[in-house]
Amino acid sequence: MPVTAVADPPATASRQGPKAKGKPKPLVDVPDIKLQVVPLGGLGEFGMNCMAICCGEDILVVDCGMMFPDDGLLGVDIVTPDFTFLEERREQVRGVVLTHAHEDHIGGVPFLLGRLNVPVYGTEFTLAMVERRLSEHELLDGASLRVVRAGAKVRLGCFEVDFIPVTHSTASASALAISTPLGVLIHTGDFKIDPTPVDNVLFGLHAFAEYGKRGVLLLMSDSTNVDRAGFSESERAVQPRLDEIFSSADQRVVISCFSSAIHRIQQILDVSEEHGRKVALLGRSLESATETAHRLGLLNIPDGILLRPDDIQGCAANRLTAIVSGTQGEPMSALSRIAVDTHRHLTLQRGDLVVHSARIIPGREKAIYRMFNHVARRGADIVYGNMNPPVHVSGHGSREELSLMLNLVRPRYFVPLHGEYRQLDRHARLAQHLTHHGLESSFVLESGDILEIDRDGARKAGKAPVGRICIDSGSVDEIVGDLVIRDRQHLSEDGIVLPIITINSHTGLCERSPEIVSRGFAPALDGDSFVSQAQKVIMETLDRSTPEERADRGVITEKVRADLRRFLSRQSQRRPLVMPVILEV
Amino acid sequence: MPVTAVADPPATASRQGPKAKGKPKPLVDVPDIKLQVVPLGGLGEFGMNCMAICCGEDILVVDCGMMFPDDGLLGVDIVTPDFTFLEERREQVRGVVLTHAHEDHIGGVPFLLGRLNVPVYGTEFTLAMVERRLSEHELLDGASLRVVRAGAKVRLGCFEVDFIPVTHSTASASALAISTPLGVLIHTGDFKIDPTPVDNVLFGLHAFAEYGKRGVLLLMSDSTNVDRAGFSESERAVQPRLDEIFSSADQRVVISCFSSAIHRIQQILDVSEEHGRKVALLGRSLESATETAHRLGLLNIPDGILLRPDDIQGCAANRLTAIVSGTQGEPMSALSRIAVDTHRHLTLQRGDLVVHSARIIPGREKAIYRMFNHVARRGADIVYGNMNPPVHVSGHGSREELSLMLNLVRPRYFVPLHGEYRQLDRHARLAQHLTHHGLESSFVLESGDILEIDRDGARKAGKAPVGRICIDSGSVDEIVGDLVIRDRQHLSEDGIVLPIITINSHTGLCERSPEIVSRGFAPALDGDSFVSQAQKVIMETLDRSTPEERADRGVITEKVRADLRRFLSRQSQRRPLVMPVILEV
Repeated sequence: MPVTAVADPPATASRQGPKAKGKPKPLVDVPDIKLQVVPLGGLGEFGMNCMAICCGEDILVVDCGMMFPDDGLLGVDIVTPDFTFLEERREQVRGVVLTHAHEDHIGGVPFLLGRLNVPVYGTEFTLAMVERRLSEHELLDGASLRVVRAGAKVRLGCFEVDFIPVTHSTASASALAISTPLGVLIHTGDFKIDPTPVDNVLFGLHAFAEYGKRGVLLLMSDSTNVDRAGFSESERAVQPRLDEIFSSADQRVVISCFSSAIHRIQQILDVSEEHGRKVALLGRSLESATETAHRLGLLNIPDGILLRPDDIQGCAANRLTAIVSGTQGEPMSALSRIAVDTHRHLTLQRGDLVVHSARIIPGREKAIYRMFNHVARRGADIVYGNMNPPVHVSGHGSREELSLMLNLVRPRYFVPLHGEYRQLDRHARLAQHLTHHGLESSFVLESGDILEIDRDGARKAGKAPVGRICIDSGSVDEIVGDLVIRDRQHLSEDGIVLPIITINSHTGLCERSPEIVSRGFAPALDGDSFVSQAQKVIMETLDRSTPEERADRGVITEKVRADLRRFLSRQSQRRPLVMPVILEV
Repeated sequence: MPVTAVADPPATASRQGPKAKGKPKPLVDVPDIKLQVVPLGGLGEFGMNCMAICCGEDILVVDCGMMFPDDGLLGVDIVTPDFTFLEERREQVRGVVLTHAHEDHIGGVPFLLGRLNVPVYGTEFTLAMVERRLSEHELLDGASLRVVRAGAKVRLGCFEVDFIPVTHSTASASALAISTPLGVLIHTGDFKIDPTPVDNVLFGLHAFAEYGKRGVLLLMSDSTNVDRAGFSESERAVQPRLDEIFSSADQRVVISCFSSAIHRIQQILDVSEEHGRKVALLGRSLESATETAHRLGLLNIPDGILLRPDDIQGCAANRLTAIVSGTQGEPMSALSRIAVDTHRHLTLQRGDLVVHSARIIPGREKAIYRMFNHVARRGADIVYGNMNPPVHVSGHGSREELSLMLNLVRPRYFVPLHGEYRQLDRHARLAQHLTHHGLESSFVLESGDILEIDRDGARKAGKAPVGRICIDSGSVDEIVGDLVIRDRQHLSEDGIVLPIITINSHTGLCERSPEIVSRGFAPALDGDSFVSQAQKVIMETLDRSTPEERADRGVITEKVRADLRRFLSRQSQRRPLVMPVILEV
């Protein structure tokens, strides 16, 4: 039973938080206890969603995602939140509750469990997807994964968590109603309100309505599509487009979609069956997600429809569908390889059709379009982008769905989740129009901002340590410091110049010209005169230094660095990394 | 008078060029002369549009653009085509003909004229924009700029060039009808077919129709929006949205748009006047483009409406419009500075409205959204993206306009211009449906592919030397080689490791441990054990070498590099740049 504590508050509200509207109304009949909502990732940034909810001596973690690095993080493969806040309170962490199986919600679990072994709760499919990642990191044996059925409740410390089924672009997604001594918090996870889901598991409208009726202290809701007017289309809306594609295709159909998009895969299987095509799955994550969903009864694979990759060659072109991974142009993915003709099993022929049934993630356009160009060079046609009927629909609700959620839940406080600042801000503006339902304040939080709620109301209260942990390869250990990344950025822009100076340790004199080594640096002068001028600069620096300075490695390094940097910047308008090496001989 | 040579050809055609359809029909009544179309940039890539058209002893250059580098070109500011093809034939180059004033069509002119001083032809506005760039490079004095009025013709060698007015997102854009001894070539430049242009200069429908009636040998046409169904909206379509924005805004309106978008600026000026707002222009390129357009009578600036940037502070918020540069989130632009509160003249206040009246160029999303996030943090609202009525319309024609162009011109041969391969390919597929109009073949060319036409027909015929010249800062001289960029890429991914080895030149022995210097490289071990292990590897390499090998700098460098690289890659799965430095003492 959710502990309810919020009477219908008055119809005054403000987007700026309690300060802007004067004194907030105190909560009635609640214990003198403090609740803290601490987003550790995913607010004000896309990816690595992770939130700590602290109440008394208990901490509940909602989601634990990763993000793929942007171009600025040179050479980094994976980014996770900084878990210091949780590690410093390890005794209080009761568990991790997962809303659904997307990387930006579960991809950080192995990295967290490597530091802090706490139980992990989620639906069967979500945990099966986590399992795979844990076993890749050899962490599965020690992990405690606890399956929660949709609609079931779990007690963790002073929290009771109710898993409410929601519709989204993967299977078995949940919102969470978290009952606390101060009242109910609702965390929507990622959702849209799909009236006709492919698996017929309906969005939990009634559960939200029931909580809304009884009173909700805080709603935290998905902001991804707040910029889109109207209602997002049902997952089933892609079916007419698939039908049209399969009716007109006279050769192979190669479709890329996200491996976790179980309902999309279901529709592709179904339309392939109707049109008498076999289906091959290309891509490890696709095979394993499909296998998992099938095993759990979430995916219905028509008998005998699957074709092993080795049998593609022998299959008639007009009898083959290939579902392939690599929607975002990832360099080693199936579609990227197929595009450049280096895939082991599938070679595009003139007249084949490639269908991109996925979102183009901002920042990935160039890689994806490059891949499409290669596909076009092979003579295959491509279906992608916006069209009607759609070849892809979003898994996130648009503005009307977000309003509906606010109307159903009618919370006292509101925190927009899942988006960059501009989207969170717009979602808060949207909520502003709903103050007649009792919304008192909205808080636009970014990762690290702490929202505190007690009997006196809610307020922003300081900052938790947050940050990103950059991981160079898939391993748990290979963490790259910010300094290394800064160096890489610096190196990548302007290169590096190393003056190598040998100093006679007996005399303290530099008996030979310094060597100048550079890489990635384009001097404005030709090479030889650049080196001789740089040598001159260094020799002058050494000459101007006292014997004591020359004997002090730190001092002389700094003096050479400063003078050479000034010379380089004047001479080339560039600021390469300057790194003097002093050798004593 | 265009020399016409093409009788209506039969209704057979092929997208694959003449080969696929058997022998092409010979041209009749034409001299035995060869015509070559040589795209030097802009085909199969976005930006730096440049094309050489060669006939007998004459070469005509159409457009000479630049492109902004993508993220892979680290530290590079500007990219231009490689002009080797033109330099090697400098005696034959009769001039450069410019279609319109966008950077990707004129930005390379200073770099070409620095190597090859030939006359430049274009409309008054286009040349005025070129003038500015030439004077920045101190090349204006020697340059020969020749203004062509719309509808006028120019003779260059054996070519006669007819400037046909087209509608586009800048002022005074032209298509070119190029009469040659073999027939007429039509180069559309960038266009859409705007039935209600802001300046009332109508699209030259009749001229295209007239050429189409007489017979056109080759059409080359803009492919940018071939993925978009229907007809692009008129530039005037943004007016209702601007009206709505200005009617509801109660504080400042800050609008970003391209500086060359003269008609957009006109509409913003007009709507500002209607709503009693003064207009400040922030951004150097914006000021200068506006000034130029005004001077040439292309922009009507209502009396007294302009406000100097210094007077912004004193202007009431609801009486101010600021038009600002920086639509693509360029770091030093006005809007980027305003977003982070470092602009000298304008500080955003809560309640101000920022309007992004421009396209989001693929690859720029992250930078633009980052800027919007900062704007939202200042409490200003943002209008951007797709909406109805639109806040931005494209300057390029959609599929129906491209079909209309093909139908009007009914060429014998077709080459899609201006796009990545996937777009060129799709444009060629679009043309395929129009074979009943006499289209014989389409050719999808990428930069460097030569299309040859003679009395026997058209065919792809080999490759011209093409490439990109990377320029580190705005100067004509600072060209960065591919090697430097490859080094930067390498450095940026995996960093650099330098073993510094001192060898006694008398004994040939290494008397002290090598120094290991690294930057941007994250060893899997802790720093100390990494260094000592790497030292051990090097010492072993030296021990295994003969005295002769140790005395040979080249050999010993290579051996150390190979062994250390193997060690690093095994130990860290990374491949930093390894650069041994051998010092003889």
